[in-house]
Amino acid sequence: DDSWTVAGHTFNSRLIVGTGKYKDFAENAAALAASGAEIVTVAVRRVNVTDPDAPMLSDFIDPEQTTYLPNTAGCFTADDAIRTLRLAREAGGWELVKLEVLGEARTLYPDMRETLKATEVLVAEGFKPMVYCVDDPIAAKQLEEAGAVAIMPLGAPIGSGLGIQNRVTIRLIVEGANVPVLVDAGVGTASDAAVAMELGCDGVLMNTAIAEAKDPVRMARAMKLAVEAGRHAYLSGRMGRRKYADPSSPLAGLI
Amino acid sequence: DDSWTVAGHTFNSRLIVGTGKYKDFAENAAALAASGAEIVTVAVRRVNVTDPDAPMLSDFIDPEQTTYLPNTAGCFTADDAIRTLRLAREAGGWELVKLEVLGEARTLYPDMRETLKATEVLVAEGFKPMVYCVDDPIAAKQLEEAGAVAIMPLGAPIGSGLGIQNRVTIRLIVEGANVPVLVDAGVGTASDAAVAMELGCDGVLMNTAIAEAKDPVRMARAMKLAVEAGRHAYLSGRMGRRKYADPSSPLAGLI
Amino acid sequence: DDSWTVAGHTFNSRLIVGTGKYKDFAENAAALAASGAEIVTVAVRRVNVTDPDAPMLSDFIDPEQTTYLPNTAGCFTADDAIRTLRLAREAGGWELVKLEVLGEARTLYPDMRETLKATEVLVAEGFKPMVYCVDDPIAAKQLEEAGAVAIMPLGAPIGSGLGIQNRVTIRLIVEGANVPVLVDAGVGTASDAAVAMELGCDGVLMNTAIAEAKDPVRMARAMKLAVEAGRHAYLSGRMGRRKYADPSSPLAGLI
Amino acid sequence: DDSWTVAGHTFNSRLIVGTGKYKDFAENAAALAASGAEIVTVAVRRVNVTDPDAPMLSDFIDPEQTTYLPNTAGCFTADDAIRTLRLAREAGGWELVKLEVLGEARTLYPDMRETLKATEVLVAEGFKPMVYCVDDPIAAKQLEEAGAVAIMPLGAPIGSGLGIQNRVTIRLIVEGANVPVLVDAGVGTASDAAVAMELGCDGVLMNTAIAEAKDPVRMARAMKLAVEAGRHAYLSGRMGRRKYADPSSPLAGLI
Repeated sequence: DDSWTVAGHTFNSRLIVGTGKYKDFAENAAALAASGAEIVTVAVRRVNVTDPDAPMLSDFIDPEQTTYLPNTAGCFTADDAIRTLRLAREAGGWELVKLEVLGEARTLYPDMRETLKATEVLVAEGFKPMVYCVDDPIAAKQLEEAGAVAIMPLGAPIGSGLGIQNRVTIRLIVEGANVPVLVDAGVGTASDAAVAMELGCDGVLMNTAIAEAKDPVRMARAMKLAVEAGRHAYLSGRMGRRKYADPSSPLAGLI
Repeated sequence: DDSWTVAGHTFNSRLIVGTGKYKDFAENAAALAASGAEIVTVAVRRVNVTDPDAPMLSDFIDPEQTTYLPNTAGCFTADDAIRTLRLAREAGGWELVKLEVLGEARTLYPDMRETLKATEVLVAEGFKPMVYCVDDPIAAKQLEEAGAVAIMPLGAPIGSGLGIQNRVTIRLIVEGANVPVLVDAGVGTASDAAVAMELGCDGVLMNTAIAEAKDPVRMARAMKLAVEAGRHAYLSGRMGRRKYADPSSPLAGLI
Repeated sequence: DDSWTVAGHTFNSRLIVGTGKYKDFAENAAALAASGAEIVTVAVRRVNVTDPDAPMLSDFIDPEQTTYLPNTAGCFTADDAIRTLRLAREAGGWELVKLEVLGEARTLYPDMRETLKATEVLVAEGFKPMVYCVDDPIAAKQLEEAGAVAIMPLGAPIGSGLGIQNRVTIRLIVEGANVPVLVDAGVGTASDAAVAMELGCDGVLMNTAIAEAKDPVRMARAMKLAVEAGRHAYLSGRMGRRKYADPSSPLAGLI
Repeated sequence: DDSWTVAGHTFNSRLIVGTGKYKDFAENAAALAASGAEIVTVAVRRVNVTDPDAPMLSDFIDPEQTTYLPNTAGCFTADDAIRTLRLAREAGGWELVKLEVLGEARTLYPDMRETLKATEVLVAEGFKPMVYCVDDPIAAKQLEEAGAVAIMPLGAPIGSGLGIQNRVTIRLIVEGANVPVLVDAGVGTASDAAVAMELGCDGVLMNTAIAEAKDPVRMARAMKLAVEAGRHAYLSGRMGRRKYADPSSPLAGLI
């Protein structure tokens, strides 16, 4: 057993997947199944709430089986994000949410000033926000103090696929945190996810790396395995690094 | 199904593990089981052939269940390696072998001149050598032309745990090879193994990364998952890399 | 001519050096001379103002020849930093200052919330603050909007010598900035400084990399050359990267 | 004074530049002057020896002022390279030469088997070969034992501009060598050259990084500075690396 808990909810899978960029909902659902994820994150602003004849994500991914984590993608101010999540709560009752307040469209970096403000308001209103943030150990601590239930630093810009750019900051955030830390954004392939877990993160969230792979379902399976691999590697305590070679064992008793 | 074949032998697992540095044979066997490996490599020179009362590896790892791959660890000349493998064949009938001819004790880098010479002789004698080598695309091609049944470039010095140092050379070797390519040496943790597979290698061989982890059995499991993860990621065709961010999907139809 | 200008002050050297960790003021002065720097940064809180018989930095480094840039090292709140710089202005008239508000002693990462607050107050009081910050493109923009005259993102933790950890963020900050960007903290050796300049930074600030080298004066010279090298490389427009080899020229007209 | 000596010839500059890919000989000469190099390498097979009316490199770069180092670019066998250098010696008397025997056009990786053979023959004939090779510590030692007067491992494929891919191997080669070691091939920008020198190399050879920069003359100057910077950094003994931050000095005697 190696479960983790966020805001009282316990999960076995340490992978959270998204619901954007897929060809259709069926492919999204198939990738989710292959990923083993128990949580999907959904952009509240992208949910179809106007056309009753259009397909619904919930027809393909059952909210009874999979935890929906509403997110505030596309929100550029605290007010905007707060309003969006209030709507989500009214519509679906969600309290466990993913907050992201973006600073600009070019980098999709979070605006930490607005993010912190929104965190404080949401917590006061009873939300349990998992918070997308820069890889800044001090900001991470401030979010935690403001009531964030999970810290979600980026590994690289959203949708860039560049991999974990700064292992030092992720390590420092993990060392300093008392709530779960999940790398959010930047993963491009399986080894990136393993690296995040080897640094001691509690989980990884990704969307583009799966959705834009040529074979999303197979990549989802790769990510499931990579997250588990990285987690076990972290727990097993890796060997030290040596500057020189070291033979596999002394060659006593030669033929 | 995603098996691979070397010299007519087909395997499902793409991980090969070693038999050095473990606390005892029982721990070695437990790590092998967790790794899912179907091949173990055994240093011929380290095999106990003199003391009938000492424990035997084969009492713990059944040669009927697991393919033993005799290796020439500790051999510093072609002659030495050839003689060692002839003894192995006489003793156990092995033809599929792992050749390594080392250049010096400090780096445990292969001596490619001697390695190539030994490959030619062994092939002429009917051996099927899988060959440890530097990460040199031309030398890899020459080994293949000399009859090597697999090319096994190092990722970093043996036992160093430094990870794949040069992704360019491993990629070039994979692109040029018509026989299986397996990274041999240098893996330190799970993501290193995933990286090797993402570069298109057919497999990975490791010993120290598992044997020297604080929990070797759990690390063996991590490596099993990492090799599978990297393989699936390679086959699924990873997303491209972007210099800037890319939102998970256009925010059409906003609330 | 390749000068740069900050808050109306023009400099030819793009290297700023510190005044901590040296054996004595004489070594500090010698390193400064070798570095070619025109600015030294001085921790206001470390300046000797109480013992008239103790040696004074200004006896070794002439404030008429070298621009003193007072900094707020050791300040952990906006108020503390503001008070420190007011004292500095009273004592020496400085308006061009370096602001750093640290978040904790372990990482010496800046507290961006306090840093932004201090920037606003200092600018309102007529200071020209060059501001130490995380490598966050949005926070950098906010500092600029608050009146920071230069943005000084860290490359790695202060005194760590780990080199530029995240080239993506430094590049994004440079692309977005209308004021000078200088990497502050993290440089360990000459190539690190060159990397910072190749990313388009206007300058580099360092202390430990020089002061803790075995030969600080020679390392100061190395850093001078590296900053110039990186600057010229940036301006000259580097070659593209190729996945494969490219011969130096077609071999027409062979012998 | 920090000169270096190869086969009895002493040089102050540690940068060797090429003579391919330039717009014209005038630009080549200007880049050479900016680089401060005392040696240029010239592909014997590309030298114009048939058209007396065409411009001659020696009209632009005076062989009395600059050491011409004939190289065997374009040779794919030992015989070919040997023949080429014999012609060069007959034509110009050169004994100090650069040997490269390529394995294939795609990677331009050296064929070490042929390279070693050619080295032996050339040394027996009185040549002083500086030898392009893979970054293999054992092969480097064998070249030295065969009489190579300098070891020139690649940092990345020729003309790729990818930078030093494997710092471990370059370091191991430097530690093991009794003749000069120069990185040859792979440098893309100034920091790459600095890295090579920081690893303890005696020099760097490059062509494309200068010739294909948008401003080759300025890049030549950048490379001159980078090589000097890296050399001084190596000699001055860099600071150690720390996992955590370290303040610039204790804040005793606070205001």
